[in-house]
Amino acid sequence: MSTYTNAPYHHGNLRQALLEAALIILEKEGQNGLGLRDLARAVGVSAAAPYRHFDSRAALLEALAVTGFQRFSAAMEAVASTEPAQPMAAMGKTYVLFALDNANLFRLMFSPELKRDNRPGLRMAADAAFDTLRQAVGGDQRSGRIKALAAWAKVHGLAILLLDGQIALRAGEDTEALIAEIIGGL
Amino acid sequence: MSTYTNAPYHHGNLRQALLEAALIILEKEGQNGLGLRDLARAVGVSAAAPYRHFDSRAALLEALAVTGFQRFSAAMEAVASTEPAQPMAAMGKTYVLFALDNANLFRLMFSPELKRDNRPGLRMAADAAFDTLRQAVGGDQRSGRIKALAAWAKVHGLAILLLDGQIALRAGEDTEALIAEIIGGL
Repeated sequence: MSTYTNAPYHHGNLRQALLEAALIILEKEGQNGLGLRDLARAVGVSAAAPYRHFDSRAALLEALAVTGFQRFSAAMEAVASTEPAQPMAAMGKTYVLFALDNANLFRLMFSPELKRDNRPGLRMAADAAFDTLRQAVGGDQRSGRIKALAAWAKVHGLAILLLDGQIALRAGEDTEALIAEIIGGL
Repeated sequence: MSTYTNAPYHHGNLRQALLEAALIILEKEGQNGLGLRDLARAVGVSAAAPYRHFDSRAALLEALAVTGFQRFSAAMEAVASTEPAQPMAAMGKTYVLFALDNANLFRLMFSPELKRDNRPGLRMAADAAFDTLRQAVGGDQRSGRIKALAAWAKVHGLAILLLDGQIALRAGEDTEALIAEIIGGL
């Protein structure tokens, strides 16, 4: 019996515990392994308990994507401030490595299905991530937007091509070094 | 009754007719609408006839992806020779517009599932498309490869972000003009 069963969660804690467990399941098994019932079992609560926090599987997926974007933005902001000489290159590398380290989460964050639902929480979290990039680029409203979109396209494309196995590494080639070279100065 | 039924195809023609019909079905209905039986019906031949050319659905999908890469390479080569002053920018724009005009085919061409099968025919067609880009970049073996990968990442990322609805156009913004601006000089 799970130790959780006799120690009921404060609602806030249960939500967090469910999200953490869901992130692990998502990375291990992909989206198909992620049902609210499986999640309840993994955390050791009743099958009904997750519904207090997520009224549907779609709501859980959205919350995971929001959490993903928050961590993603935080990672990019952190590296931009520790590498002020080349913030764009540092952020770009962080972008691609985040995608490789959290492949299923990254695909979920950018899934067209979730995007189509157009939920305000997800839209805000995604916009905040883009704004992090937009701030680092500088420039006026028009040219800054174009530069930020160009940088985004490059790092997103590199992430997807690597995730999809389209870029084959040569003998002796190191992924991180190759990413840094391809990103260049951005 | 289809006019095809009384005019049996020469094998070569049937293969081509099946591919053309499959490309239309793929774009209209997506991969799920693409069965060998549906295809036989669409072309007006017996259910067994497609098997003379494609021994499985996977073989049909691979042939479609190969055809896609051949047309893709041809389109990029054509534009590179008609715009010799800025071949990379012209090829980049062609890359992204091909993706937008043939969304399901483009996704199939770059699907990780097909890539994982690692069939020689598809690998050769995909490599030829990359080589078209690689030739246009010039440079020595090492720096040329990095430049070509960087250009590929940028146009592939832009294509995917547009296909997935991640880049929202502003009021009055034109997709083609925005693509040209983002691609810039490459």
